[in-house]
Amino acid sequence: GAGTDGDLYISQAVVFIEDAIQYRSINHRVDLNSLWLYRWYYSRIWQWILSLTITIILALAFIEKPSSLTVTSDVRYRLPAWNPPCGLTESIELLCFLVFMVDVSVKSYLIGWEEFWKNKWLMAYILTLIVSLTDWIVSLSFFCAEVMRIRRILRPFFLLQNSSMMKKTLKSINSTLPEMASVVLLLAVHLSLFTMFAMLLFARTKDGQQDKEWLVYFRNLPDSLTSLLVLLTTANNPDVMIPAYSKNRAYSIFFILFTVLGNLFLMNLLTAIIYNQFRGYLLKSVQSSLFRRRLGIRAAFEVLSSLKEAPANAQQSYVSTGALLQVLQKVEMDSRCKQAIVRSLKTYSCDQLSAAQFQKLFEELDKNGIKQHPPSPEYQSHFMQKMQFAFGHPYFGYLGNVVALANIISICVVLVMDADKRPSERDDFFLGAINCFFILYYLLEMLLKILAMGLKRYLSYPSNRFDGLLTVILLALEIATFAVYGFPHPGWRPEVMGLLSLWDMVRLVNMLIVFRFLRIIPNMKFMSLVVTTLLDLVKNLRAFAGILVVVFYAFAITGIMLFKGAVVPPGNTRPPFILREPISFKEKCDFMVLFGYLQDNIIYCLLYLLSVNLLCRWAKIYFVAWWLISSVIWVNLFVALLLENFIHKWDRRCHREPVSDVEYQRTVELMFRDVLEEPTEEELMEKLQQHPHLQLCR
Amino acid sequence: GAGTDGDLYISQAVVFIEDAIQYRSINHRVDLNSLWLYRWYYSRIWQWILSLTITIILALAFIEKPSSLTVTSDVRYRLPAWNPPCGLTESIELLCFLVFMVDVSVKSYLIGWEEFWKNKWLMAYILTLIVSLTDWIVSLSFFCAEVMRIRRILRPFFLLQNSSMMKKTLKSINSTLPEMASVVLLLAVHLSLFTMFAMLLFARTKDGQQDKEWLVYFRNLPDSLTSLLVLLTTANNPDVMIPAYSKNRAYSIFFILFTVLGNLFLMNLLTAIIYNQFRGYLLKSVQSSLFRRRLGIRAAFEVLSSLKEAPANAQQSYVSTGALLQVLQKVEMDSRCKQAIVRSLKTYSCDQLSAAQFQKLFEELDKNGIKQHPPSPEYQSHFMQKMQFAFGHPYFGYLGNVVALANIISICVVLVMDADKRPSERDDFFLGAINCFFILYYLLEMLLKILAMGLKRYLSYPSNRFDGLLTVILLALEIATFAVYGFPHPGWRPEVMGLLSLWDMVRLVNMLIVFRFLRIIPNMKFMSLVVTTLLDLVKNLRAFAGILVVVFYAFAITGIMLFKGAVVPPGNTRPPFILREPISFKEKCDFMVLFGYLQDNIIYCLLYLLSVNLLCRWAKIYFVAWWLISSVIWVNLFVALLLENFIHKWDRRCHREPVSDVEYQRTVELMFRDVLEEPTEEELMEKLQQHPHLQLCR
Repeated sequence: GAGTDGDLYISQAVVFIEDAIQYRSINHRVDLNSLWLYRWYYSRIWQWILSLTITIILALAFIEKPSSLTVTSDVRYRLPAWNPPCGLTESIELLCFLVFMVDVSVKSYLIGWEEFWKNKWLMAYILTLIVSLTDWIVSLSFFCAEVMRIRRILRPFFLLQNSSMMKKTLKSINSTLPEMASVVLLLAVHLSLFTMFAMLLFARTKDGQQDKEWLVYFRNLPDSLTSLLVLLTTANNPDVMIPAYSKNRAYSIFFILFTVLGNLFLMNLLTAIIYNQFRGYLLKSVQSSLFRRRLGIRAAFEVLSSLKEAPANAQQSYVSTGALLQVLQKVEMDSRCKQAIVRSLKTYSCDQLSAAQFQKLFEELDKNGIKQHPPSPEYQSHFMQKMQFAFGHPYFGYLGNVVALANIISICVVLVMDADKRPSERDDFFLGAINCFFILYYLLEMLLKILAMGLKRYLSYPSNRFDGLLTVILLALEIATFAVYGFPHPGWRPEVMGLLSLWDMVRLVNMLIVFRFLRIIPNMKFMSLVVTTLLDLVKNLRAFAGILVVVFYAFAITGIMLFKGAVVPPGNTRPPFILREPISFKEKCDFMVLFGYLQDNIIYCLLYLLSVNLLCRWAKIYFVAWWLISSVIWVNLFVALLLENFIHKWDRRCHREPVSDVEYQRTVELMFRDVLEEPTEEELMEKLQQHPHLQLCR
Repeated sequence: GAGTDGDLYISQAVVFIEDAIQYRSINHRVDLNSLWLYRWYYSRIWQWILSLTITIILALAFIEKPSSLTVTSDVRYRLPAWNPPCGLTESIELLCFLVFMVDVSVKSYLIGWEEFWKNKWLMAYILTLIVSLTDWIVSLSFFCAEVMRIRRILRPFFLLQNSSMMKKTLKSINSTLPEMASVVLLLAVHLSLFTMFAMLLFARTKDGQQDKEWLVYFRNLPDSLTSLLVLLTTANNPDVMIPAYSKNRAYSIFFILFTVLGNLFLMNLLTAIIYNQFRGYLLKSVQSSLFRRRLGIRAAFEVLSSLKEAPANAQQSYVSTGALLQVLQKVEMDSRCKQAIVRSLKTYSCDQLSAAQFQKLFEELDKNGIKQHPPSPEYQSHFMQKMQFAFGHPYFGYLGNVVALANIISICVVLVMDADKRPSERDDFFLGAINCFFILYYLLEMLLKILAMGLKRYLSYPSNRFDGLLTVILLALEIATFAVYGFPHPGWRPEVMGLLSLWDMVRLVNMLIVFRFLRIIPNMKFMSLVVTTLLDLVKNLRAFAGILVVVFYAFAITGIMLFKGAVVPPGNTRPPFILREPISFKEKCDFMVLFGYLQDNIIYCLLYLLSVNLLCRWAKIYFVAWWLISSVIWVNLFVALLLENFIHKWDRRCHREPVSDVEYQRTVELMFRDVLEEPTEEELMEKLQQHPHLQLCR
């Protein structure tokens, strides 16, 4: 009947508007039951369960068997890691798999059968689940003593497929691959030609004294290739050329030529290529988000307009404000935004909304970036007004910065004076006294500012929140110190009482004071530009960081599997140039694979492996791949994004008017607002016609 | 009289056109004597003398006293360097100074007294000469035993002031300095805050066993600062965090935070800033060159137009073709270009040239980039035509590439097989035989190509010239080998005869064959794009390279002066991690300062210095300055230019039509041709009115 149809249309409109808010695609089933399932699937609770499951399955690696997660990494001191009994991690895994199976079935059902066959991500999801389950069964049938667990390498896939941003980024990276491959090929040609040259140049001579270069670095083809590859990472520079250089200075020309061509030209060419490919990436991604938002709104308009009986020959369709109000009540969205829409809806005199008016109403959604600070309190007393003027003035803030600087300098002076003193000789009186004074000043500053601005306005500035929080923590610490150790006096060196020694307390306070000094950042123009760029970058980099986590995880698991038996006992085999501490190879590589964000780590590891003759072919390929992906490609991606962000910001810096009391929340959407193109009506309608489940009347 | 005036105008026009050709400024004296002096000053011979003088005065450092230029750098084997007697280098220097004095006086006279006071470069030139001469007199009065020679640090200035490109580039770099200084300040703040944090975190503890981190890296403020500064260059990563990490894994967070913020963010921010500043640099420089050219031509037109008696009320001035022909005969320019101008001048029916026509004639100058290959010979015989088709076909070139690849592979196989053999066991027969075969093929290929294309067309391609030259050299080497050692046969291991042993001959041939393999580059699309970008870059980088030479030279001389007495005898003081060879510090640093294009070298040196407790405060500042300038700033400048060049090229790659037989010479002017703006008539005339020495009638 018409009533059921009406309910359906209302529900469809609600879901489409929610899609628009969340920048989701609207290509899903639109019958009543599916809509209910869809809203449940995207409800906060199910998405939270899904995220939790992904976190749990990824975190399993830290407690599973070959893990070495202990506080200390020194093999001499550390306790054996806890070994969970067989079946514990496996049953957690099974639970996770069950959640994923529900997830994949709901997702597949919602997009519909035809779309499912086109969606490679969903197919891969199902395949991964099947392989993981098979591997899990094999594992259990061997009572957890199987040779290798393939499913552990597959785990990061679950993280990847759950984020649309990450999938989009991966697609972008994928489209850059041909060019990157060309440069890598060029690097390979460069490397192989120079290797042949080197082998001919540093051949074995009849005079045994003279061929140190051959002996150490260019003994055979793999050695030569490795030497030059490591030179490309600059890790063994200049060691690799010293023997030849000390024989004849002219040999250095070979190495200089190799490094200039390889490092300066080809490596930077990679940066240029990646930057060139990613120049439009952010804009494109924001543009497609905008299209999704407009499409969702338009779809809601279309379904609502079919609610009413319109004349068949009417050129324009309309939506009644009543229907929209009904929809708005059911939509889950930011309440401030909803109120604003309802308010502007009520200003319309006419009961009928055209498509353009409908879109205009929802432009409120794009405006969430502008934030008004609450006003200062208005005092009646003349004295209070003067106080308010004095302590609300920027100069009072500058005075606070000067005091913080003075505090930093005093700590620095004490540190320099106490540098060589033994802990027992140290007198904590001076530091205790000045810190006490400074913390009192900070407290006073905070209170006066709250007095001048009012609590609400004070808290609306992030810099004040940062400031206030640290001041409160410092105060609490100081009070705790005095409660336990009494007031400072000369020769104040009490014994340890309670959790922390006095020295540790003082150190903690000092560290917090150093940290608090960062409040000066917004006061320096260039610094605040840099910091806001960096914060933007961090926001835009979430997808990249996710992909990085996926790659790190896969590499770490592969590394653990490859080098399971490679633990070297600390002893004489340790090469002299690498470590002063007796630390095992596994320890080092393990640590590097997890935190190895810099090429040098890996190259040290490679050198180490080479020197203890442990390096099998697989390890070499593993490390070269690691170096290429983590250091070369990822760092270049990062540089490309930074360039993009920074140059855009820099260009706009001059144009933006100084807005006094309005603070922009820095979102990418806002950054590109003046460059974005609004999708045309035709584009929107064409896309709507292609919807696989929605049949529009027109 | 009119005749003298006529001569003057003709001479002025000649000089202005020559200025336009060479992109020189026209702001110089324009009377007859000055013009003669001007043409003599910019004549090839005087410019050549000037360049030679600059080269000589810079090269003096290699034979002067503290130099250590010997073949081997090993202090144990090398002979003492030759010490020139006092007065030899000094008299050469005096000669150079005399040349410079002539140079500066002529230059100052030519631009005129008023301009001279505005020209800071000329003043600095004179000041440098005065200081150098004073220092030279002091030197001689001490009989070359003076403490230090200031004039040696000043020498690179002579190189700098002689190149207008370098002066322009320096100005650009100078305008980027405020932003760079901001980032460097940010780095300093980052470094100092983290240093304080580190000193608080890794303080001395009561348990002596636990504070290795404090002992080695964070003992006092200078130590901590140095440790973190070196970490910023990644040279001591991950060594610096190992002691703390082995105590508690959580300490690594500190180091990771420091490196990510410092290395990944701030360092790359520097790249972004420099790139942002240099984005328009190339275009601006080409634009100003174009303006100079148009201005010179216009000035020539104006002086020529005042030759004729024109009606006072004539709105437009004209130049007669006869006068222009007279001028053209005297102008020194590329003969092909001159002929083209004369030819198109003869096609004009009218005797009078307007300003626009005059400019149009000289547009031939901008066209020197397009080069036509001479045609192939036309053979009458049917057989020869077929031959020509077969061997002129690109497939024949591809076959040549395949053969070259086969040769490379065969050499590679022999190298791998012979890798561990002693020289006495090696059998050179196989390599000799196959090389002989391949070289014969190369000869045949060259001859057939010459047959098909004709010698002129063959030589007009750079790839053929490269190919042919190497083939001829290979042939000569092979013939020499056979003449000395006879034909190859199994067990062919003759003794050394003449200059090179058979093995050395074979190695040389093989190296040339590897080098010849680079002929494949133009056949691969992406590779050729990359190579042309790199070649462009090298052209555009000449000014940067010049400035780099200036900076290197100044640093090297300062380094030699600072570390004169720091030669460490090889012995036990050598730290274990840096060198396997007994090589002195001076040797190493000397070598690094001259060739130290990579930060690591300098940091190794710094670590070395630290470890032998030689590091005075000056040395530290010296090395930090060196690292900042050579590694951070220069490398970033390079990356910025590469990005600029490459992105421009990449964008245009799709637009450019494939021109079959016409080859573009890649000049910056051509690259930007479609973006350049022609200066307007008003701009040109305004500039001409401002000329300090030329009074135009109008």
